[in-house]
Amino acid sequence: MRGNVYCGPGRRSWDEVPDPQITDEADAIIRVTATTVCGTDLHILRGDVPSVRQGRVLGHEAVGIVEQVGDGVRTIGPGDRVLVSCVSACGGCRFCREGHPGLCLGGGGWVLGHTLDGMQAEFGKVPFADTSTYQVPAGVTDEEALILADTMPTGYEVGVLKAGVQPGDVVVVVGAGPVGLAAIMGARLFSPSHVVAIDHADRRLEAAKQFGADVIVNNSVTDPLPVVKALTGRLGADVVIEAVGEPDTFELAVRLTRPGARIANVGVHGKPAVLHLEDQWTRDITVTTGLVDTYSIPMLLRLLASQQIETSRFVTHRFDLEDIGQAYDVVSRASETGALKVLLTK
Amino acid sequence: MRGNVYCGPGRRSWDEVPDPQITDEADAIIRVTATTVCGTDLHILRGDVPSVRQGRVLGHEAVGIVEQVGDGVRTIGPGDRVLVSCVSACGGCRFCREGHPGLCLGGGGWVLGHTLDGMQAEFGKVPFADTSTYQVPAGVTDEEALILADTMPTGYEVGVLKAGVQPGDVVVVVGAGPVGLAAIMGARLFSPSHVVAIDHADRRLEAAKQFGADVIVNNSVTDPLPVVKALTGRLGADVVIEAVGEPDTFELAVRLTRPGARIANVGVHGKPAVLHLEDQWTRDITVTTGLVDTYSIPMLLRLLASQQIETSRFVTHRFDLEDIGQAYDVVSRASETGALKVLLTK
Amino acid sequence: MRGNVYCGPGRRSWDEVPDPQITDEADAIIRVTATTVCGTDLHILRGDVPSVRQGRVLGHEAVGIVEQVGDGVRTIGPGDRVLVSCVSACGGCRFCREGHPGLCLGGGGWVLGHTLDGMQAEFGKVPFADTSTYQVPAGVTDEEALILADTMPTGYEVGVLKAGVQPGDVVVVVGAGPVGLAAIMGARLFSPSHVVAIDHADRRLEAAKQFGADVIVNNSVTDPLPVVKALTGRLGADVVIEAVGEPDTFELAVRLTRPGARIANVGVHGKPAVLHLEDQWTRDITVTTGLVDTYSIPMLLRLLASQQIETSRFVTHRFDLEDIGQAYDVVSRASETGALKVLLTK
Amino acid sequence: MRGNVYCGPGRRSWDEVPDPQITDEADAIIRVTATTVCGTDLHILRGDVPSVRQGRVLGHEAVGIVEQVGDGVRTIGPGDRVLVSCVSACGGCRFCREGHPGLCLGGGGWVLGHTLDGMQAEFGKVPFADTSTYQVPAGVTDEEALILADTMPTGYEVGVLKAGVQPGDVVVVVGAGPVGLAAIMGARLFSPSHVVAIDHADRRLEAAKQFGADVIVNNSVTDPLPVVKALTGRLGADVVIEAVGEPDTFELAVRLTRPGARIANVGVHGKPAVLHLEDQWTRDITVTTGLVDTYSIPMLLRLLASQQIETSRFVTHRFDLEDIGQAYDVVSRASETGALKVLLTK
Repeated sequence: MRGNVYCGPGRRSWDEVPDPQITDEADAIIRVTATTVCGTDLHILRGDVPSVRQGRVLGHEAVGIVEQVGDGVRTIGPGDRVLVSCVSACGGCRFCREGHPGLCLGGGGWVLGHTLDGMQAEFGKVPFADTSTYQVPAGVTDEEALILADTMPTGYEVGVLKAGVQPGDVVVVVGAGPVGLAAIMGARLFSPSHVVAIDHADRRLEAAKQFGADVIVNNSVTDPLPVVKALTGRLGADVVIEAVGEPDTFELAVRLTRPGARIANVGVHGKPAVLHLEDQWTRDITVTTGLVDTYSIPMLLRLLASQQIETSRFVTHRFDLEDIGQAYDVVSRASETGALKVLLTK
Repeated sequence: MRGNVYCGPGRRSWDEVPDPQITDEADAIIRVTATTVCGTDLHILRGDVPSVRQGRVLGHEAVGIVEQVGDGVRTIGPGDRVLVSCVSACGGCRFCREGHPGLCLGGGGWVLGHTLDGMQAEFGKVPFADTSTYQVPAGVTDEEALILADTMPTGYEVGVLKAGVQPGDVVVVVGAGPVGLAAIMGARLFSPSHVVAIDHADRRLEAAKQFGADVIVNNSVTDPLPVVKALTGRLGADVVIEAVGEPDTFELAVRLTRPGARIANVGVHGKPAVLHLEDQWTRDITVTTGLVDTYSIPMLLRLLASQQIETSRFVTHRFDLEDIGQAYDVVSRASETGALKVLLTK
Repeated sequence: MRGNVYCGPGRRSWDEVPDPQITDEADAIIRVTATTVCGTDLHILRGDVPSVRQGRVLGHEAVGIVEQVGDGVRTIGPGDRVLVSCVSACGGCRFCREGHPGLCLGGGGWVLGHTLDGMQAEFGKVPFADTSTYQVPAGVTDEEALILADTMPTGYEVGVLKAGVQPGDVVVVVGAGPVGLAAIMGARLFSPSHVVAIDHADRRLEAAKQFGADVIVNNSVTDPLPVVKALTGRLGADVVIEAVGEPDTFELAVRLTRPGARIANVGVHGKPAVLHLEDQWTRDITVTTGLVDTYSIPMLLRLLASQQIETSRFVTHRFDLEDIGQAYDVVSRASETGALKVLLTK
Repeated sequence: MRGNVYCGPGRRSWDEVPDPQITDEADAIIRVTATTVCGTDLHILRGDVPSVRQGRVLGHEAVGIVEQVGDGVRTIGPGDRVLVSCVSACGGCRFCREGHPGLCLGGGGWVLGHTLDGMQAEFGKVPFADTSTYQVPAGVTDEEALILADTMPTGYEVGVLKAGVQPGDVVVVVGAGPVGLAAIMGARLFSPSHVVAIDHADRRLEAAKQFGADVIVNNSVTDPLPVVKALTGRLGADVVIEAVGEPDTFELAVRLTRPGARIANVGVHGKPAVLHLEDQWTRDITVTTGLVDTYSIPMLLRLLASQQIETSRFVTHRFDLEDIGQAYDVVSRASETGALKVLLTK
């Protein structure tokens, strides 16, 4: 079959690779019908993720048709249309049993397109298939479901739920890329009084409005602090979600809070940040971090099936899977192209 | 001044009564600009609430202008426009400090129009004014705020929050009177996948649709159980809110649940109900009861100010305060008149 | 091999039965080194549990040595000493993934000694072995671990955790049988100010004292209400755990509460109970039911390993497995013999 | 009367000062029978707290007898023995009503011995007396209650409760001064499997053992990381409580955690700390800060009354109030004198 192979820093190619084979009772082989490119894939391509070796088929997000399953797989079978989670769950370790497969100790976690071959290919193998794939209900399209493989659960679980968004809150989301937009869409599920989006790109801020932000601030030209203070009786935001991953934006996130606020970090950080404990030690704040577990996928599928969320809104560009090179190009120039999620279909 | 006086079972009159006087440092006198009639007032009139004595001015819901305050009142003053909570909070007892003034041990709780003169009058006295009234923000009308005195917090706190409604839930509300409708409106704040309203009056079910129910069942003609099963993969509802107050509807509420569900009783009961522990002991259900505390008023005011809820939708009839007799008449024939909340203004 | 076979109402025998065989990738065969008799086994013997067919090997609690595992079993292997949970977990269904295998939809739940052959035998087969057995740490005896198969998690999860026992609470436990005692021991983990045990047998009340009750009430001679009122400033108990399973004791449990209290039902009920909603609708109470999930086993093993709980205290009688007839006799006359848990070893 | 007056950096004196006077309806005058010196008082003396002006009577912890109350005070009266909380609560602002008077917006918070005259004096005035004092139950001594004015609630609320200590947890407390010891004592209320105390003073570590630590590490000679790893199957601590207030100890606290852990900062920080988000962003950690609210005082009084905690253990030195100079000396040389809390009585 053909797949998108990582060939070392700066290089990838759409290449002939061996077909995946069932090697464990819990494996499933999926014929990929929809996949996409994640910001993490660009990091890998830049050589920032040394645990990804040359020759690896990339990609950790897919919808497809089950082709074959191992003897131990009970809940899916050939012909089923399934969503593949970006996180695989062994199902038996302490963290999986506590609902946190993102921390899996039994061989799962983020492995697809990382330590195992991934989903940007004609076929992909999913380990621990019973606990790592989800039947897609009739009436939900591949495109809608695909956004639930990673983007939407990340914004929702690591942002909205960890921050404990409540009705009436003033929620600030710093960074309006795909995950920031997912946090905005997810925050709206809890009826905050205001959602403020902060970014330095107007194009992203326009997208933020479409996703549910009612206040937008371009922080390359406007200081967001007075804006937030004005909305909150001078107190500061109830909740801030950091979705950039820079020391500066993390410190901004903390600065925008009211006493008693929650700050959920969703951004991928490469450097340490400063926590101003000399100011914050009395302020009763809570800071959280985390990797997505995707435990929210079944619930998000229910919301899709009942038309309470519209995830196809994330898809800005569509390509045939074979044209994945163009997809990478569009995503890597997102500030120009306005790309959020690209859809690759076969 | 004039007020609506309870004259014993079956009798009330719009009468001359003494002006209220400040008798405690924490009192405030309010000039009533908007009040309404509650289902509880009808119970009182029927003689069902013996703790209400003849001569009592009725009413526990109001918006008005502060006329005068006691020396100990810090947060409101003459001229302020305030919402009067149906529950007064001493602010110092164990339950008030834990956020439950509905259980106040220090002289508060439901006292207005009950053990103290109430708000269906030109003026009313509010005890513990600092913790029992709320400034109404500019941009929120009297009518919108009035619904937050009792109806909306009751459906929201005792129904939605105690039941722990979560995104994606299938929520059933049994009873589509004002409080049931408040529960429906409140449940929608958490983005359930479906809200099912059950009532035996089609007129109320039509209202339920306006308030956010997407499925309605007239249980005098249709068994709701198969409807709920069909929506939930045969499991049953995640959440049921009982807003009628009859043994039958309580038992129905329990019967509609999935294993692991929460049942919040909001209905006012006059008789015991049967809890089928022989079926339920293994089913991991949670049943809650409660009186409103109105701790959610500040949050609901923020939602009103940011136009996230539309409480004026509850107001079906409008009268001059002096025509309160007509208001009682309309409310007492609600099934005919379709009355939800009547607005009485001065 | 030999096992304890149910032969229809009133009859059981220690009989030759076929050795269990691996029939599923997820199965494990355990050589039983310690098992016990549960109150539920007596119910089965009386014919109260029709889903148990004649010929069934009884027993759902065991510690043993893994003899053989199916190809799909990853976390245990031959020679390992494991605790077998009374609840089997498929690990993949909605309820298992949410931490509630007691409600398993995938073939688990309470199946051992019920719909599948159980553990009162020389060997037993455990389905879904990865998620239904636990390695016993060195330093924890078989006897100590055995109590964690059912008794202790039931009192702890369905009683203590569902009731939300908090430091300083006044906790009442109605019924001082094995599960009531487990609730007392479990409640003490949260440092309540008082634990009141209620029973009509003085012998059980003496045991309750050993397990952590500081106040005991024989309710065949003393009304517990004034006792509880005196301990709580006339308010009533913060938490009541019902561990009997009769309509009367459930109603007593509700009557002993303060406003705002939580009542956790652990008792096995055969009849409906009355819930006095006419009194309780304003009292802000929470009533819970449930079957044990055993999610607390890993934590309880940590407490055993660090000597924070002493579960061997439950074992009042010890027999050789072949003398299981005597064990049933002792347990069935518990009020005379003072039996709590019997230990059967091989 | 006489009181302990701050006379600018480095200087204090036991001096004649005017008797406190009721100036607000909510005030109470207390005749101080027991007070103490807090680490914060030493900070003030060093000039580190510029909001404390010269001439201020210091002290924010006291037990005493009510001498006189303002007209608006309802719950205490002359002759009552009361505990004065270190935090005053206006009772009406958003944060007070949400249970967080440490963030009071209405004139409370930490004001005693800070912006108002305090309790190291023969008499002290308490604002908002109804919500800022607590009746001491018979059977609880002044000395036992005094520790509940600040030390014990700080360790319990800001450390133990914010960190969410659960049964079976491995809890690490960094810093074994009075507040660290309160965190250890408070953590034991939830039955952790192990409590590890870390300090660089052996004398403090010996105290930590008395307060409930079962493992002690002198981190000037031993790296605590391998110790914690050995206790936790190489995962790291479930909970870490930072009770020092230095950048290094905060970073150590984060480093000792397992994925999914909670870190509660209790230490008073004067400098920023580094949060290593480049390592922590995936690790699902929660960091909290906070000032004590003292909402736990009523519960802690219940625990004292039922002899579940022994707070007199904190008192290492006793003086007559007039000898407060000696008390300051002993506390300021705590590493030499082993002083935890000094008791000053009159």
